[in-house]
Amino acid sequence: MDYKELSLKMHEKNKGKIEVVSKISVKNRDDLSIAYTPGVAEPCKKIHEKLDNVYKYTSKGNLVAVVSDGTAVLGLGDIGPEAAMPVMEGKAILFKEFGGIDAFPICLDTKDVDEIVKTVKYLAPTFGGINLEDISAPRCFEIERRLKEELDIPVFHDDQHGTAIVVLAGLLNALKVVNKNLEEAKIVINGAGSAGISICKLLLLAGAKNIVMCDKKGALVEGAEWMNEAQKIIAKVTNRNFEEGTIKDIIKGKDVFIGVSGPNVLNEEMVSTMNDDSIIFAMANPTPEIMPDEAKRGGARVVATGRSDFPNQINNVLVFPGIFKGALSVRATDITEEMKIAAAKAVAQIVTDEELNEDYIIPGAFNEKVAETVANEVARVARESGIARA
Amino acid sequence: MDYKELSLKMHEKNKGKIEVVSKISVKNRDDLSIAYTPGVAEPCKKIHEKLDNVYKYTSKGNLVAVVSDGTAVLGLGDIGPEAAMPVMEGKAILFKEFGGIDAFPICLDTKDVDEIVKTVKYLAPTFGGINLEDISAPRCFEIERRLKEELDIPVFHDDQHGTAIVVLAGLLNALKVVNKNLEEAKIVINGAGSAGISICKLLLLAGAKNIVMCDKKGALVEGAEWMNEAQKIIAKVTNRNFEEGTIKDIIKGKDVFIGVSGPNVLNEEMVSTMNDDSIIFAMANPTPEIMPDEAKRGGARVVATGRSDFPNQINNVLVFPGIFKGALSVRATDITEEMKIAAAKAVAQIVTDEELNEDYIIPGAFNEKVAETVANEVARVARESGIARA
Repeated sequence: MDYKELSLKMHEKNKGKIEVVSKISVKNRDDLSIAYTPGVAEPCKKIHEKLDNVYKYTSKGNLVAVVSDGTAVLGLGDIGPEAAMPVMEGKAILFKEFGGIDAFPICLDTKDVDEIVKTVKYLAPTFGGINLEDISAPRCFEIERRLKEELDIPVFHDDQHGTAIVVLAGLLNALKVVNKNLEEAKIVINGAGSAGISICKLLLLAGAKNIVMCDKKGALVEGAEWMNEAQKIIAKVTNRNFEEGTIKDIIKGKDVFIGVSGPNVLNEEMVSTMNDDSIIFAMANPTPEIMPDEAKRGGARVVATGRSDFPNQINNVLVFPGIFKGALSVRATDITEEMKIAAAKAVAQIVTDEELNEDYIIPGAFNEKVAETVANEVARVARESGIARA
Repeated sequence: MDYKELSLKMHEKNKGKIEVVSKISVKNRDDLSIAYTPGVAEPCKKIHEKLDNVYKYTSKGNLVAVVSDGTAVLGLGDIGPEAAMPVMEGKAILFKEFGGIDAFPICLDTKDVDEIVKTVKYLAPTFGGINLEDISAPRCFEIERRLKEELDIPVFHDDQHGTAIVVLAGLLNALKVVNKNLEEAKIVINGAGSAGISICKLLLLAGAKNIVMCDKKGALVEGAEWMNEAQKIIAKVTNRNFEEGTIKDIIKGKDVFIGVSGPNVLNEEMVSTMNDDSIIFAMANPTPEIMPDEAKRGGARVVATGRSDFPNQINNVLVFPGIFKGALSVRATDITEEMKIAAAKAVAQIVTDEELNEDYIIPGAFNEKVAETVANEVARVARESGIARA
């Protein structure tokens, strides 16, 4: 299929993808008097009396803002807030389709970190949660950190955490297939931008002990001067053998390669230097770090990509609808690391031991159990952590 | 009907009134590849190449933000952004029901004029138009003025202009019933807040020459020190006979009383001091300035209120859906005074000469011709004024 042409036609025909509709019928004077004046004054008064009632009488509790400044849209880069709209609308309809959540695109005409933080805070009364999307690093780190501190609703940068969670889910099952475990596995993450660093942090929290991160300039190693702030921090808790060199050197003797880098950075020969039963997550889009058949020829046992036309698609849509559904259902004040790990395990466990094999380590995007299962686990952990308000 | 209890129940049962849904089906991998990655990159690129394409490929062109800071909600006053949500959601569903427009509530957690202006500007890439709602005077004037100057999409403060337009529509027909004309009619407007001043301005532009505005402290008269800035400006172009006194004095010898003030400020005796065939628009909500039967006993020939349980309801819903529908349909850069007057005339003309009588000067809220008729006239005038972009 020619997705490019079809996508243009579909977007033009429908003039975008979202619609704001009424949950109720407004067909006569009585309807109008109940939904609008004079009746509407009553829920207003109740909320004014007790702020918490906003969750009882309005849509807030199920509304998520999909916020972007258009600076890091897909692989297209800084294309601006208007050009980001098709992606944010797309995200909104996936929230609805997969999680039953009402999400709305907010494309901001500012790249200033302080202004973005302030604007999202001003918008917060309307929303039950904030999904940050396609905001460039390192700005995205500060924006998320400050919003998490200052708001009492969940804030989640999906490019970082959604990816990290689904990678962890896939990796847990891939390791099962090859009879290895996360604590002992030697892992290299190629690509030390926001997604790579976020994956690394979550794997560490989930128990991984041997991770080396690589960027174009080579392995992240404590003391190297060329690294940015985020990389310097992560270099202190990874690469404890102080390995140096580029991915060609670093990949030797590793059990797992996780790529969030670029097309074709890996080849068969490099894969053949890995340990037996190696695992390759080649997630560069649309062209992966290595094609699955080449990786297999190099000796890889499990290969995953970001693409839907190969087995084992590592796809954020398995995570963000369920994470928000769970957090919103208990009115969690935050999305914590524990909730993220619970989400990853929930996704992984949908593939039963009987079903699990090299070509099926992760459920498909349209598996109907996923969002509900993730939501239940996330809600449970939020309650146990004492950050649920309902 | 007990609207209060019914409204609370309805809002609680549905958890608010709006829902964000997809215009398209996303049920398989192909759907996903067209609506989201990889296909979605194509409309993004087209918009990045030419900003104008945002109207072609996204929902922007039919999206209106209903923006409030919750400082002047209904008659409840400054109840805050969360408590304003039920009203803004209500407005959003009326936009959809009556105008086919997708409107979204934006309840802002700031009362600072500069911050509100900045925030709305940052949000502008997502929206085709901005409807300001329930923002207190005089802040609402500056916010609207600055946004109109700085944005290239229509900005409209409905509390001011929606009310003014529908009053003008009703008044044109009421004057026809009593065989008087706008130029010569002696008019008193009671209530010199944002709605009153906006009504006054539009009546002047439409040709009225004899208007006196009254507030609690008495008639607005040039030179009086107690008036605020907006009132001082309007006093220079009204009350050219320099009448002084309270509404009890000022109403004597007038043809038209327009009340946007409070309950029961008028009585039968005061109405009886007006000219023959007087017109009373008693729009205080929910209790009008005078009840229709009492006004009639005082000699009024045409009485209108804001209520749906009396004839001649002066209701903004006759205007804002059509105004925005018309402006958005031609991508007007503004909503001008000419467009407002055209909207008023369009509403008035829906009542045919055969139908027109004392108890039917304005179409009912559910008259299906209204929004379309208003939209067509507004679009025509926008085109003629050269501010249409499509």
